[in-house]
Amino acid sequence: MQILFLGTSCMFPTKERAQPCVLMIKNGSYLLFDCGEGAQRQLRIAGISPMKIHNIFITHWHGDHSLGIAGMIQSMAGNKRKTALNIYGPKGSKKRVACLLKAFDFKIEYELKVHELDLKLGECRPVLKAKDFTISAFRVKHGSATLAYVFKEADKRKINIEYTKKFGLVQHPVLGKLQKGLDVEYKGKLIKAKDATYIKKGKKIVYLTDTIYFKDLKNLIKDSDILICEATYMSDKEDKALEYEHLTAKQAGMLAKESNAKKLVLTHFSQRYENVQPLIKEAKSIFKNTIEAKDFLILELR
Amino acid sequence: MQILFLGTSCMFPTKERAQPCVLMIKNGSYLLFDCGEGAQRQLRIAGISPMKIHNIFITHWHGDHSLGIAGMIQSMAGNKRKTALNIYGPKGSKKRVACLLKAFDFKIEYELKVHELDLKLGECRPVLKAKDFTISAFRVKHGSATLAYVFKEADKRKINIEYTKKFGLVQHPVLGKLQKGLDVEYKGKLIKAKDATYIKKGKKIVYLTDTIYFKDLKNLIKDSDILICEATYMSDKEDKALEYEHLTAKQAGMLAKESNAKKLVLTHFSQRYENVQPLIKEAKSIFKNTIEAKDFLILELR
Repeated sequence: MQILFLGTSCMFPTKERAQPCVLMIKNGSYLLFDCGEGAQRQLRIAGISPMKIHNIFITHWHGDHSLGIAGMIQSMAGNKRKTALNIYGPKGSKKRVACLLKAFDFKIEYELKVHELDLKLGECRPVLKAKDFTISAFRVKHGSATLAYVFKEADKRKINIEYTKKFGLVQHPVLGKLQKGLDVEYKGKLIKAKDATYIKKGKKIVYLTDTIYFKDLKNLIKDSDILICEATYMSDKEDKALEYEHLTAKQAGMLAKESNAKKLVLTHFSQRYENVQPLIKEAKSIFKNTIEAKDFLILELR
Repeated sequence: MQILFLGTSCMFPTKERAQPCVLMIKNGSYLLFDCGEGAQRQLRIAGISPMKIHNIFITHWHGDHSLGIAGMIQSMAGNKRKTALNIYGPKGSKKRVACLLKAFDFKIEYELKVHELDLKLGECRPVLKAKDFTISAFRVKHGSATLAYVFKEADKRKINIEYTKKFGLVQHPVLGKLQKGLDVEYKGKLIKAKDATYIKKGKKIVYLTDTIYFKDLKNLIKDSDILICEATYMSDKEDKALEYEHLTAKQAGMLAKESNAKKLVLTHFSQRYENVQPLIKEAKSIFKNTIEAKDFLILELR
């Protein structure tokens, strides 16, 4: 499992940072979260064909999070794509994608499926269920209708080797049954799945950007392995953060702590901060395991 | 006068080349020709604020030539722009810009003036007349309604110093009158403007991309100082060039020669050519003064 940061700026792209875009790769599934301007070029620079992407999750339709969609659609069309592309976004997304198709001169031979998610505040609903993972969305508080996304690897039942060894069980077909959660009888002895196996929780990654801090947020994102969170401003600009409905680095740190995150990755930095180290420091003072997202940073999860 | 190449790729951006975009700067006027995806970021990398741009000339609405417009509009809005932005393009441009505004969540406090140019083939019409220059457009042959643009500096009447010296005229108000093309009487002698002055022709720059070769093209672009021309394919791919309605490097060289250009700048290279030197060589074999456009290349004209 990999997370590749393709864009880590805020509204204005800078020399070092493209607009928001994060790619998660899980067993051959390429999942794009937000698609700022230049996403297709960032992918190419990273050596990844846009053709690999089948699912794009848009938080909201402010341009910095969505301007790159038209280019992705066009490049895929230019490559004579035939397989469907899924775009997930808040209410209104269907109309917006339809407008995009009218704005540019495209010929598309593949299906463009737009999934509109009209969620109530506090509700968290699965939007894509795959064999290995589920992606859910919940609503946050921003001017434009905005979602946050939760990637959750499927939990896996693992064999408790120390326990099964006691029965002389090594590389035996009954282990497969145990792994499916079934009790088995082996050489006249009953082996219960609940004793011979344990559940290894799948990784949880939260993509949270463009919201103010609100009461239920910590519950919606709780126990993440990685919390990818905006840190648009320093806390001395909390008024500005509130005005534009963004989080400060301090609030990101608080959220990581309160929600019991394992690691916090800060992104979506305002262009006013050429050096973002003070923002990282601010969050770190509250939540130690904080790092800075940079364009082309890769996080490997094992 | 400067020409700054901000994007020199074809449909697919590459690591080295962004989608088509050329900036011409003349006495404080910043004129953008085409606006591929990432144009706003390319401008920022070049150290130029998008706020300086008041006129964007779109050849056509294939994405590679126009995807960056929405980002420019958004960034200008984000910077609280109040002055108007002019967008020039072929018939249908008004509807397309209106669709763009509906696709993204924008709040714009400035006027967006879209100038639709519905030209017949062979017709060349001025679309922007300024004190120092005129920009004209003509129609080319491409699948989508497509324009090419001609930037023409105003001609200037200059004093023939050798001639006026004979009358003892150095730094005298009557020189100003001569420069306006008026005949003057000085110390009882008639000095005719036609003898005492000469016309210095303004520079002519042609921006020509996305067309097939056709009979009248050489007349529409004749006597340019700089011909910026697509060279999407090598001539061994002439069939492909015709199929997708593009020019080969050889055809670009022929056009430069036949139209009496002074300098040919090749751009809009297909991604298939990682090294474009063979294309430059092909055009050079026909028209010697040929160079390659690269992203961030600056041409100074004096």
